[in-house]
Amino acid sequence: MSKKRDIAIIGIGMTKFGELFNQSYDDLVRDAATLAIKDAGIAMEDIQAAWLSTAFPEIGVFKGRSGMDLCEPLNLYDIPVTRVSNFCASGADAIRNAANALAAGECDVAMALGVEKLRDRTPQDSIVKMMVELTHPFYQKGFTAAGTFAVYANRIMHEYGVTKEDIANISVKNHYHGTLNDKAHHRIACTLEQVLASPMVADPLTVMDSCPTTDGAACVIMLRAEDVNKTKHRPVYIDGIGLSIATGWDLPFFDTKHDFLSFKATQNAAKMAYSQAGITKPIDEIDLVEVHDCFSIVELLTYEDLGLCKPGEAKDMIRGKATQLGGQIPVNVSGGLLSCGHPVGATGVRMVVEVASHLRGDAGERQVIGAKKGITHNIGGPGAIASVIVLNIEN
Amino acid sequence: MSKKRDIAIIGIGMTKFGELFNQSYDDLVRDAATLAIKDAGIAMEDIQAAWLSTAFPEIGVFKGRSGMDLCEPLNLYDIPVTRVSNFCASGADAIRNAANALAAGECDVAMALGVEKLRDRTPQDSIVKMMVELTHPFYQKGFTAAGTFAVYANRIMHEYGVTKEDIANISVKNHYHGTLNDKAHHRIACTLEQVLASPMVADPLTVMDSCPTTDGAACVIMLRAEDVNKTKHRPVYIDGIGLSIATGWDLPFFDTKHDFLSFKATQNAAKMAYSQAGITKPIDEIDLVEVHDCFSIVELLTYEDLGLCKPGEAKDMIRGKATQLGGQIPVNVSGGLLSCGHPVGATGVRMVVEVASHLRGDAGERQVIGAKKGITHNIGGPGAIASVIVLNIEN
Repeated sequence: MSKKRDIAIIGIGMTKFGELFNQSYDDLVRDAATLAIKDAGIAMEDIQAAWLSTAFPEIGVFKGRSGMDLCEPLNLYDIPVTRVSNFCASGADAIRNAANALAAGECDVAMALGVEKLRDRTPQDSIVKMMVELTHPFYQKGFTAAGTFAVYANRIMHEYGVTKEDIANISVKNHYHGTLNDKAHHRIACTLEQVLASPMVADPLTVMDSCPTTDGAACVIMLRAEDVNKTKHRPVYIDGIGLSIATGWDLPFFDTKHDFLSFKATQNAAKMAYSQAGITKPIDEIDLVEVHDCFSIVELLTYEDLGLCKPGEAKDMIRGKATQLGGQIPVNVSGGLLSCGHPVGATGVRMVVEVASHLRGDAGERQVIGAKKGITHNIGGPGAIASVIVLNIEN
Repeated sequence: MSKKRDIAIIGIGMTKFGELFNQSYDDLVRDAATLAIKDAGIAMEDIQAAWLSTAFPEIGVFKGRSGMDLCEPLNLYDIPVTRVSNFCASGADAIRNAANALAAGECDVAMALGVEKLRDRTPQDSIVKMMVELTHPFYQKGFTAAGTFAVYANRIMHEYGVTKEDIANISVKNHYHGTLNDKAHHRIACTLEQVLASPMVADPLTVMDSCPTTDGAACVIMLRAEDVNKTKHRPVYIDGIGLSIATGWDLPFFDTKHDFLSFKATQNAAKMAYSQAGITKPIDEIDLVEVHDCFSIVELLTYEDLGLCKPGEAKDMIRGKATQLGGQIPVNVSGGLLSCGHPVGATGVRMVVEVASHLRGDAGERQVIGAKKGITHNIGGPGAIASVIVLNIEN
């Protein structure tokens, strides 16, 4: 597919992200959807189809295994609702399948909603341990998310002269951005020294290089671009959506040609999305970016995989503050996953809400002035599945 | 959406359904996909996008939580793969989202694959108990699947003069059909007396009114109808796909107007699919049907919900053998879920494979002679989510 997506987002909404012990899964669905519906200026019964993204029912509150868990809190029945899950790309994939349904003419008004409640554990605390034991030998070999991404961190330090400080400065930047976002889980600025001195998780990644475990929900309302009523709506357009699965669990570790300096999944997803959106020089055409900084190193690697700079030059972007608010191409002005936290099924949708709010000029004190085009990026699996969405205030 | 879907199925494949202890989840994916690819006369690398349906990773082998679990066994990378789950309608929903992507032009060749491995339990046998405890108060009130559908059975017996024998004769019919299907889990004919005398599960439903727990996988390869090369392919066309969620977990039991004689989800899904396919008199236009006989009573109710007869007349269809092989409108000539078993994520795709094989004239000794149009039906949740797909040998 190389044609433009031609989909409009006419409503956005999200809950606060954080430790939301006083709100159930259903509460989060209702709050995010109600805000998006209100923002769109439509009624709940105008929704003709919906896609629900929850990645991990089994390690949270056992909700989100079917579309029913969207219908029930919204009292929204007699329509098709699909639950999608694709690890960290789940939210973007809900948006992608909704966009396909709109383009196919299956529906005229679609909802994509991501929600995850990870802080409430089930009575059996052993469920996480059980999941880790059962899910795949991958974990049994020590390849946790942090462990995997640490291998990449060590390689990029060795090959490209990246320093621990460069990686930690991603965390400093995003925590500063997070202080400007009242929906973020953590709103605490930190210093380089604090990041480096925080407890080690997987060398060189410390606790402060790692995103927190978080509850939250986000929602978007979508139309075909041709159906936008410009006197009524404040549309943001989706020009491109890319998704790619590039490896299995073990593949990178058994592929003797893999250099551990890039994620092919991100490169593939960007290529797919850019091709649809007609983007050829991302650094010149894109005004802001939300990337999947589950660990600070992932943001650094992603500058290169998204084509924002050449291989080996990501360190110069962070050293030159190009990706800080006010810089050439601000990245994660929301605070990123490092500040917002990572309710897995919600994160991809949260990023689209963030970028859309900038394109509409609604982002308050963290507004990227004059932003017209932005992208969102997710990667999970870890490193296997990636998504890229291109948003544009113009059609 | 009221226009025809205009999607073609050019390849079908499925594994044997049963207790497949000697085959892993990956083996099942590989076997079903390889058969479908071979049937389509294409290569694995021709697949441009895929949808994976697995409903219950957490009660089986913890696989199918993302698209990666399709990519890895097929060595099929660098494409988008979405995992969908929607309880018993999961397989149909994978086909639906693939059809949307084709119609949207996102891809030109799509795979929809359903797989479930339920017989291998995890080391902790308590996982099922845990799920039952955790998933919803619904189960804590005794509303298991059998318990819920038994309420419907009692109501239809009371209101419409349906007898226990009518319900049991569904099981007799489908077990007979199952003897003709070498892919079925159970291939044992049974008598009315055997069904009635088998152990009671939830009065009036006995063990032989209930489908077994089963492993299996099924796969279809899809194109836009306009892309079919008739000298190369043996296409079956998808004219309509309906999906609807009509209730929540508790809703039917708190809705004082609900009569427990029909499933609104099925009625909605049929209306959506028939509208797309231009079907106005299903009994005259449809030649064979695969319905979701997880319990025999569900097939009986579904005759009415699909519009094959008027309310109260389903018993006449079974008494007159209209739905037996050779009758006016054969239902579940595969043996249904009662014989094939119910690997949940695979069942919807298995039904499409079954109907397509009849439309192509490939169904061997259970062939419905001259079949040109057929439908598949799923319902789960239980009773909340339904899907209907209309297949046609002509375009």
